[in-house]
Amino acid sequence: MMDISNTRIVLVEPQHPGNIGAAARAMKTMGLSDLALVTPRQFPHAEATARASGADDLLANAACVDSLQAAVADCQLVVATSARSRHLAWELVAPDVASQRVVEQSRSGPVAVVFGRERSGLRNDELEVCNLHLRIPTNDAFASLNLAAAVQVVCYELRRAGLAADALRPVAESDNEQGLATSGQMEGLYAHFQDVLIASGFLDPDEPKLLMRRLRRLFNRARPHDTEVNILRGILNSLDPRRQQ
Amino acid sequence: MMDISNTRIVLVEPQHPGNIGAAARAMKTMGLSDLALVTPRQFPHAEATARASGADDLLANAACVDSLQAAVADCQLVVATSARSRHLAWELVAPDVASQRVVEQSRSGPVAVVFGRERSGLRNDELEVCNLHLRIPTNDAFASLNLAAAVQVVCYELRRAGLAADALRPVAESDNEQGLATSGQMEGLYAHFQDVLIASGFLDPDEPKLLMRRLRRLFNRARPHDTEVNILRGILNSLDPRRQQ
Repeated sequence: MMDISNTRIVLVEPQHPGNIGAAARAMKTMGLSDLALVTPRQFPHAEATARASGADDLLANAACVDSLQAAVADCQLVVATSARSRHLAWELVAPDVASQRVVEQSRSGPVAVVFGRERSGLRNDELEVCNLHLRIPTNDAFASLNLAAAVQVVCYELRRAGLAADALRPVAESDNEQGLATSGQMEGLYAHFQDVLIASGFLDPDEPKLLMRRLRRLFNRARPHDTEVNILRGILNSLDPRRQQ
Repeated sequence: MMDISNTRIVLVEPQHPGNIGAAARAMKTMGLSDLALVTPRQFPHAEATARASGADDLLANAACVDSLQAAVADCQLVVATSARSRHLAWELVAPDVASQRVVEQSRSGPVAVVFGRERSGLRNDELEVCNLHLRIPTNDAFASLNLAAAVQVVCYELRRAGLAADALRPVAESDNEQGLATSGQMEGLYAHFQDVLIASGFLDPDEPKLLMRRLRRLFNRARPHDTEVNILRGILNSLDPRRQQ
């Protein structure tokens, strides 16, 4: 994946040290490592380390500063986040759109995504430091997204944007297209089915079409591998009533 | 937004009650409400309620059952989740793709997204109950996504898919998604297969697993309609060697 280590996550006055640790873990699972904390209430703290669960290197390297301005002074793009639509004064963009902007901009220098306080979010003077305002879409009746959960969603979108920028598929290519049965193998399977089902009396030899069409529809949808066709033919052999007589 | 209340989140053997509460909060922020727990280690628990932070209605209404099969018996589509790429046997799809499938299918009945244990994920026999396997793309060097964080990412994608489905309602419902067999009907089919194949000698009763896994993989991929399951069971009845003797 393209390098997104230029992307900084900034937490402004986080009140619960557990959230700092969980945010560090969320970042690291998505390949981010640059964490800045603006006047955290309690840090370092055992609860932060516990919830980081292996991402404690991010905590050890986290910058602690005393203003948002100081945390983002070297950044070319600063994105504010919100789960609520209270910032009506700002144009709000969706997380995927903002993440594309962040990833593009990070090619040329540091960028930051900023998260506010657990209860009250970002103040107006802080929002004004930001270039772009991202809103995570939430349930209008319950917009109470946990701070670390919001960091997780945004870091997930940043990773997706980084992968897309590589033109890489976000998940490993499946091997599902390997070794599919050929059309000829499928025809052999259907002929075998028809033969055994006529022998068992399940299929009317004068009117086999409807049932065979149903079986074709089912198995063509599954697109069996050739090994699977072999298994099905082994099953048909084992169940052939003529064999048992 | 379109109703996604048909979408169930299933947590299999969650070990930490805090994760159950945080998962409920994650669900509710994204508009989901149907939570099922398979043998949680501690539940109800004060830590779950604390971390739910206002989503305790989901905890109060959560179904507690003793197997994954019981949790998803009425579902037409069951999606397994993973943050690691260890399930190489399965076709892995990205969260956005899986979410679109879930939202489409939820128009016609209950669907489920399943999350495994914090440390060990889902067992093979549980993965085999599922039709689709979702992988959240993570940092290869640190794939340790917290359980509630994974639920948050998936519920976020489900909400995005629900919002997108509003904008893109299909003109005509595809009949392909109508009348799919439930997970309980599929389990009945597999038990029937196993019984008949042991009777025919094709399946070693001491080691039925490998073949049954192949059959599950094939038919879960095809996602049969209930009429197709009935046809397959009619075929099995007609081919049962005990009937012909």
